[in-house]
Amino acid sequence: MQQRALELKRAGRRIGFVPTMGFLHEGHLSLMRLARERCDVLVVSIFVNPAQFGPTEDIEAYPRDFRRDEALCEREGVAMVFYPSAENMYAADASVWIDEEALSGRLCGASRPGHFRGVCTVVAKLFNLVLPDLAVFGEKDAQQLRIIERMVRDLNIPVEIVRGPIVREADGLAMSSRNKYLSGNQRENALCLRRSLDQALALFGQGEHDAAVLRQAMVDLIECVSEAEIDYIGIVDERSLAAVDEIKDDVLIALAVKIGNTRLIDNAVLHL
Amino acid sequence: MQQRALELKRAGRRIGFVPTMGFLHEGHLSLMRLARERCDVLVVSIFVNPAQFGPTEDIEAYPRDFRRDEALCEREGVAMVFYPSAENMYAADASVWIDEEALSGRLCGASRPGHFRGVCTVVAKLFNLVLPDLAVFGEKDAQQLRIIERMVRDLNIPVEIVRGPIVREADGLAMSSRNKYLSGNQRENALCLRRSLDQALALFGQGEHDAAVLRQAMVDLIECVSEAEIDYIGIVDERSLAAVDEIKDDVLIALAVKIGNTRLIDNAVLHL
Repeated sequence: MQQRALELKRAGRRIGFVPTMGFLHEGHLSLMRLARERCDVLVVSIFVNPAQFGPTEDIEAYPRDFRRDEALCEREGVAMVFYPSAENMYAADASVWIDEEALSGRLCGASRPGHFRGVCTVVAKLFNLVLPDLAVFGEKDAQQLRIIERMVRDLNIPVEIVRGPIVREADGLAMSSRNKYLSGNQRENALCLRRSLDQALALFGQGEHDAAVLRQAMVDLIECVSEAEIDYIGIVDERSLAAVDEIKDDVLIALAVKIGNTRLIDNAVLHL
Repeated sequence: MQQRALELKRAGRRIGFVPTMGFLHEGHLSLMRLARERCDVLVVSIFVNPAQFGPTEDIEAYPRDFRRDEALCEREGVAMVFYPSAENMYAADASVWIDEEALSGRLCGASRPGHFRGVCTVVAKLFNLVLPDLAVFGEKDAQQLRIIERMVRDLNIPVEIVRGPIVREADGLAMSSRNKYLSGNQRENALCLRRSLDQALALFGQGEHDAAVLRQAMVDLIECVSEAEIDYIGIVDERSLAAVDEIKDDVLIALAVKIGNTRLIDNAVLHL
């Protein structure tokens, strides 16, 4: 992959990159379309990264369908699908890791220790292998996106990070490879994530700037839903991800909710 | 710097890189000559990296002479001297760091906690700014060299690392910017580092493979020298840096000794 990327760079080609864990959906495809518009050669990686799964998280159960993914990539004009094995990505005695220490402890990082270390490390590795001019990351993973942007800034990585908007099903559920785990009832219950965000946005629109009030309204809504268990609801500064009490600047509302055994995330930004 | 590097890459030029902390001596110049032979454009950085100095280490006292360094670089055919400020290299809220966790705790890492985190992070940053095809590091910093090689492997960094042999004064003292701190007497006493290595090499040549015996001979020699205080003497596996008892494979003998207030390092590799 790196050899091919070096050849493309030498030939003056502009490489766009969308890193994924596969099991592609419309969300991923929208990122590919964003990248394709702005590059000569589009590369997609498919790698279910063991380093970002915790010991209690079942990486084997993560959904995979490479044939289908490959066909979808071809249809989107992807020039190369990079599909490495875990053995090729990580030496048995691998000992170098990248840590982001300001944004990573909160939100998802609080319930998934080590997750963002795994994310940062694999993204840096993929950047070094694919050598993209630009890479697109989805806004659904709001914390990941900001951590990647911070890593690019702090390590001077010569890659432009492009934010891809959340893509939703017709009823508002944010697209996720994990949605496939949901039973019919759970699929309906999963709408509580988006509905609670809408509720907070509506209250904010009515002039409510107290984060505790917004959060309580979200909690009340979600707690009425069977099988829904809140992991966190964060109302945080859009850039530092520090919790805010009163909304005086752009904030990110991010939440993670387990529906049965499936952990789903969603978020919205409130612009002042 | 990155802009210029990207332009050079686009023009198909091969960039060679020697990162330094300045106050250049023959050791640095030998690295430049090694790099120059193998590249079209030679870049040297001069940056006294705050992140690799501990709270008890006096970064302000580190010797500096930019004018002289610049003239030396020019004489060696250096195309660009990259001389950033600490403020330009590190954002006030920098939060991303690179940790090497297998090789970094031993030898110098044991007495300089955080040192190699600072080294790895700044080297990765410099690589991303200078975009070299190859970079030369001196074998005098034996542990640093191996940690950089490990980082390049584990993060898939597209830079070839070239090892530059130790350059010594006529009497055997390894060249170091820190040698300038030594008084006349201390300069003589500092020869104990090399002499203790020679002693170990001689015993090994006579068939002695017990690391404890070699180490004791080195200790005995150094302890006779006034103002010499051993920080560590490591007899370690050449690649893993794990301590060895009996020498059955290539080993690195590395030591750090304080002569007065000046901490000096030296090393040798025993090839079986």
